[in-house]
Amino acid sequence: MGVEIERKFLVLGDSWREAVIGSSAMRQGYLSTSAKATVRIRIVDDARAFLTLKGPTSGISRAEFEYEVPLDEGRAMLDMARPHVVEKRRHIVPHAGLTWEVDVFEGAHAGLVMAEVELVSADQAVALPDWAGPEVSHDDRYANASLSRNPGVPNATGS
Amino acid sequence: MGVEIERKFLVLGDSWREAVIGSSAMRQGYLSTSAKATVRIRIVDDARAFLTLKGPTSGISRAEFEYEVPLDEGRAMLDMARPHVVEKRRHIVPHAGLTWEVDVFEGAHAGLVMAEVELVSADQAVALPDWAGPEVSHDDRYANASLSRNPGVPNATGS
Repeated sequence: MGVEIERKFLVLGDSWREAVIGSSAMRQGYLSTSAKATVRIRIVDDARAFLTLKGPTSGISRAEFEYEVPLDEGRAMLDMARPHVVEKRRHIVPHAGLTWEVDVFEGAHAGLVMAEVELVSADQAVALPDWAGPEVSHDDRYANASLSRNPGVPNATGS
Repeated sequence: MGVEIERKFLVLGDSWREAVIGSSAMRQGYLSTSAKATVRIRIVDDARAFLTLKGPTSGISRAEFEYEVPLDEGRAMLDMARPHVVEKRRHIVPHAGLTWEVDVFEGAHAGLVMAEVELVSADQAVALPDWAGPEVSHDDRYANASLSRNPGVPNATGS
């Protein structure tokens, strides 16, 4: 068990690409997005599968439980989750001592690029990179579970 | 991954107790009961925890994925599931070459006693023990997930 504390931003431009140190392909589906728990199956690089439960969000933190599962079982669960599936390529981008994850969405959400940074406490100071645009940490439309239910790219924050 | 095929019956009387070969205490909570998947956390004898996903029911069969998880994580998930929790003692009762599980419910469902038998195919012949009462395989009210949402014992089948 862990507690996930993260902030999320839309991404401006392509300059972040110069700092990428690794990337992986992710396909993830949602088996539940109930008030009690989000249940996600994620396939990474078509090679490993992870089942993740997340509790309700409190501010920018939530309980998280993640277990690796056999790939064939992960694939069967991804099929169960359809059409609530999100596809993206995740790029790892270090910046000012923190590890950012820049997600370039594909398929139904092509055009959306979003960056996340995981923190150890909710009030931790974060040095924002130049390419960090509007913060969407509190905008439910940008939650991957919401995206899985809604094809397309959400309109700019606040609209 | 497996496919669960089972039949369920209400239990008449106490004669099954003579054939019990083992029993365990179960507390189980439901994190999701969506159309796509039932997500259950089960704590057995306050010692081991199992996370189980079940797909939609098709007749008397459904896909099932089960993973053992650390006990402390299981307990945290059980807390997340409250109040959708079921408590029961499960007794193992062999009969005519099959293994029956007789569940004696406690807490909010005290008074309910139900037996399940797992089959290898949906049309497998089953020799019913004397203590097997009305079949409730197709009565959703007796699904443990339904019980977790509804305190008390359902009325007799068909009412």
